[in-house]
Amino acid sequence: MSLHFNEFYNGATGLTVGIGKQLFREQTPFQLVEVFETDTWGNLMTIDGMVMLSEKDEFVYHEMMAHVPLLTHPNPKTVLIIGGGDGGTAREVLKHPGVEQVDMVEIDEAVVRASKLYMPEVGDFENPKLNVIYENGLTFVDGPENKYDVIIIDGSDPVGPAVDLFKKDFYEKCHHCLKTDGVLVSQTESPFVESYHDSIRSVQNAISDLFPIAKLFLTYIPLYPTGMWSMSIASKKRDPLSDEVTSDINNRLSSFADTLKYYNQDVHSGCFALPGFVRQILK
Amino acid sequence: MSLHFNEFYNGATGLTVGIGKQLFREQTPFQLVEVFETDTWGNLMTIDGMVMLSEKDEFVYHEMMAHVPLLTHPNPKTVLIIGGGDGGTAREVLKHPGVEQVDMVEIDEAVVRASKLYMPEVGDFENPKLNVIYENGLTFVDGPENKYDVIIIDGSDPVGPAVDLFKKDFYEKCHHCLKTDGVLVSQTESPFVESYHDSIRSVQNAISDLFPIAKLFLTYIPLYPTGMWSMSIASKKRDPLSDEVTSDINNRLSSFADTLKYYNQDVHSGCFALPGFVRQILK
Repeated sequence: MSLHFNEFYNGATGLTVGIGKQLFREQTPFQLVEVFETDTWGNLMTIDGMVMLSEKDEFVYHEMMAHVPLLTHPNPKTVLIIGGGDGGTAREVLKHPGVEQVDMVEIDEAVVRASKLYMPEVGDFENPKLNVIYENGLTFVDGPENKYDVIIIDGSDPVGPAVDLFKKDFYEKCHHCLKTDGVLVSQTESPFVESYHDSIRSVQNAISDLFPIAKLFLTYIPLYPTGMWSMSIASKKRDPLSDEVTSDINNRLSSFADTLKYYNQDVHSGCFALPGFVRQILK
Repeated sequence: MSLHFNEFYNGATGLTVGIGKQLFREQTPFQLVEVFETDTWGNLMTIDGMVMLSEKDEFVYHEMMAHVPLLTHPNPKTVLIIGGGDGGTAREVLKHPGVEQVDMVEIDEAVVRASKLYMPEVGDFENPKLNVIYENGLTFVDGPENKYDVIIIDGSDPVGPAVDLFKKDFYEKCHHCLKTDGVLVSQTESPFVESYHDSIRSVQNAISDLFPIAKLFLTYIPLYPTGMWSMSIASKKRDPLSDEVTSDINNRLSSFADTLKYYNQDVHSGCFALPGFVRQILK
């Protein structure tokens, strides 16, 4: 392919993806949303020049963002997703038979529209349990109190509209929205990129102050900078690594285990193993 | 930077690294060895256009290639490294106080020369326990029998001179070279790249036939394709995940734990957690 999408993340180092036709391009009030054809990843969505997802690798991010927190909670029924407009996180959440309501608060309807048009397998937008709300997640969390079992903060990188999703004020409000055994997860960038260390620490410090249990976990994402991505989890009651959580995973996955391509019981436990240099960031 | 080194691994997808001066370029009888300056990774060595290591990220690969097998063995004294000419794997092996002799069999002296010149912190070539032998690893293993505690196959990708390092014949010879409680490890490419699945399966099938214990483990490497790399481990006696291994790790690392930036006890256990799609490759 003669055209390449380049995303640089560490000085002049980056990802290069051969692209075909540009399928979608819209400068919204919030950001530049684009979708491109690729040769090997299906369609690729970018926001402000940063990869959000491809059809072929999105399973990793969405499975990890949904199942690590949902399995940590004993019986999640109401789930709030902040961002996540492509629909992939909601699709994974909705696989849990006990989930009754998913509120997805996306600031930018163009993301949902682009996903429906050019990534039709990613979202499960027709599901009657899914409630899509076009609103700023930062103000949405001012409202509900003691309402949600799980909150998933599926925002983009800490530039543009998502920057406040990495600040303590926001996590205080999320804490209020969660029930007494609530669990929260947030994507927190790559530990291999030094310029993101402050964002990781900011979220980890915020949730450590607010919740009795706060941890970082890691996942491989081939089209994200460095291929290593971190997610932060906070829980009011259950530790994601406790026996009561891990011993029940296979049982709770049984109705949809065959749909999973990444997450499983081993991955749930293994993803919390942090290399030395990642531990250093958190000190 | 205006110059970029590009390595494509999945169709038109790849890594792009901004480079400065070319410090080394030699077409040897075996391959093209190059070293470039970069802005954020220190110096970068490539072979036949594929990234081998940078000064800033080499710690991950070398710690994982050395410490996972050495900690699996109860008391490694003699270690054989096939390839590994940059010296990083030997450096990590030599941190173990019980190691008495490391034979490093590198086919291409230019790799050692380039590393000594332009990556002087990577190798520990002055160490009197290190024995560098310039020979083809494939023929070297015809000789010794029942000699080594650990064999580390630190070859390049399965194209060019390293292609036979992924075949069963070679692993049969390695099995003969190993003592009765011997442990072997080999780098086996990225599971995210479909064209490497045959190489992963080839090594896994070979070691599963030859050794009672054979497993795959994973590590993050930011400058390798997709950021996810697999390594295969085979053991004649001890399982790397057994309690006798994992319970002794902290004790055995104690004299050099402060030099490690990636490997630790949690990582040792966690790296064997395989995502669903990786399990599928092995079926």
